[in-house]
Amino acid sequence: MLIVPEREIADLMTREAAFEAVEKVFAAMASGDARNFPVVREAIGHEDALYGFKGGFDRAGLALGLKAGGYWPNNLDKRGLINHQSTVFLFDPDTGKVRAMVGGNLLTALRTAAASSVSIKHLARDDAKVLGMIGAGHQATFQLRAALEQRKFEKVIGWNYHPDMLPNIEKVAVEAGLPFEAVELDRMGEADVIVSITSAFSPSLMAGHVCEGTHIACMGTDTKGKQEVEAVLLKRARVFTDEVAQSVSIGEAQHAVAEGLIAEGDITPIGAVINGTHPGRTSDKDITLFDGTGVGLQDLAVAAAVVDLAVEKGIAIEVDF
Amino acid sequence: MLIVPEREIADLMTREAAFEAVEKVFAAMASGDARNFPVVREAIGHEDALYGFKGGFDRAGLALGLKAGGYWPNNLDKRGLINHQSTVFLFDPDTGKVRAMVGGNLLTALRTAAASSVSIKHLARDDAKVLGMIGAGHQATFQLRAALEQRKFEKVIGWNYHPDMLPNIEKVAVEAGLPFEAVELDRMGEADVIVSITSAFSPSLMAGHVCEGTHIACMGTDTKGKQEVEAVLLKRARVFTDEVAQSVSIGEAQHAVAEGLIAEGDITPIGAVINGTHPGRTSDKDITLFDGTGVGLQDLAVAAAVVDLAVEKGIAIEVDF
Repeated sequence: MLIVPEREIADLMTREAAFEAVEKVFAAMASGDARNFPVVREAIGHEDALYGFKGGFDRAGLALGLKAGGYWPNNLDKRGLINHQSTVFLFDPDTGKVRAMVGGNLLTALRTAAASSVSIKHLARDDAKVLGMIGAGHQATFQLRAALEQRKFEKVIGWNYHPDMLPNIEKVAVEAGLPFEAVELDRMGEADVIVSITSAFSPSLMAGHVCEGTHIACMGTDTKGKQEVEAVLLKRARVFTDEVAQSVSIGEAQHAVAEGLIAEGDITPIGAVINGTHPGRTSDKDITLFDGTGVGLQDLAVAAAVVDLAVEKGIAIEVDF
Repeated sequence: MLIVPEREIADLMTREAAFEAVEKVFAAMASGDARNFPVVREAIGHEDALYGFKGGFDRAGLALGLKAGGYWPNNLDKRGLINHQSTVFLFDPDTGKVRAMVGGNLLTALRTAAASSVSIKHLARDDAKVLGMIGAGHQATFQLRAALEQRKFEKVIGWNYHPDMLPNIEKVAVEAGLPFEAVELDRMGEADVIVSITSAFSPSLMAGHVCEGTHIACMGTDTKGKQEVEAVLLKRARVFTDEVAQSVSIGEAQHAVAEGLIAEGDITPIGAVINGTHPGRTSDKDITLFDGTGVGLQDLAVAAAVVDLAVEKGIAIEVDF
């Protein structure tokens, strides 16, 4: 079996490879070739940690396995380790034998950023000029880098609950040669694309903050109770997601569905747009909203890609298991 | 992190160590120190394989992780590999980082055999002399070896749906210096302890086949629909199990509960007997029945034990992950 340690991922994996892997697996999910398994997520009653498994099988890409790990909130303060810790395990679908073990921390950031980037490619207006960021934490920097690759953006505007964190994303914008402006939420109407990546439990972006023609990627809501945008905004928008079942239960759409503003049937898997079986945006006036909940198949897809790259470069550690 | 490949397990792991690990974790489960997570088990639609994850956390033993793998029915015929394939992954409960990866095939056989052996230790009559085996496959040989260690058995009797497989278990009995006799099911009344380990979907052992005072370990039923003994036998018996929730849903007790013969509250976790909070057998006339469904915590317990042994003997492969 092959091992690709966390420390090797940064040099191996590219945003392009992550984008390609995630776009492909979203397409496979929509065409019925790939399926996520039920998610296990448990508060273990030790170190306040959340731990669990996100598994799946992509028959098209022949990726079988899981991401295991979770959130250890005391890691950074107590031990200087990052709080999100995960490892991806790939299995040989022909035999059930373990095939590879891959560090999952950076990959998780890359695959999450790739998801909103895929949504921008397929749903944002071609002439989008202004990118709005809501959230300015570590993950927001990945989102911003990946988003900037999809359109010829000319400006980045950003808002964060703690404004002192905004330099995190300003730095990325400046590196990309773009002006950055810190704004209040009511100026998000200037954005053609908005990426929201917070861990909020109440909405920041209200329906009145958003103009016609905008694409919004809601990337922060992955748990019951979390919420980034006003529920009625989903009624105004065409809503897309990675996986409908997660969107209505733990994703951004949970609130709009619970309040009866939209129904499960109103939500389209983004893979259908990628596959060309759904038109996606139909006019420059549509508001499109992507509810990115995060699925195990994304993790398997980027891990499989990184194993291929590691083998190619002779970096994978081989263990006779 | 540490790796213990499948090929090393046979030389490292002993029945005694497996017994001790399983007895301890059953006790921890009953005292609330250890908990299994929801089981994921999926037909993946490739190679007719069943694949999934059994995870858990033992706060007492600080074992966190999962067994991943499943059943690949074509492995043996197509590839000369065994059909059951599994790997155990242990995580550091303090940090969420992966701690060890251990081959799970032999360990699964040993931990399953240890479970019935634990039940015999705590529930069979002290003066048990005759051991009855129902089933004569590969796993039956493990069950028999482990069972023989718990009482001063003087004879083994055995039945199998395919009698030509009985030499598998006869060999184990003879190696232990005991006479073996192939019998029809109606002679199981001669046995003081009966271990049933088949993959049947209809009962072999009927209530009328069993005498007062017998201990029965039903080890084969781990799926909805499977059944080894007549449901009414559970009404006559004191019923124990590894995990009550699994016993009533996928274990031998599923049928007796569905038919209203017993209720969930009639089933006692074997850990309560180990801990001394339940008396277990109360007379030489009791029929006791252990419904061994198999839980992830058993896998974690034996894997943690084998990692300790591998480190002690300098055999564990260390990878800087």
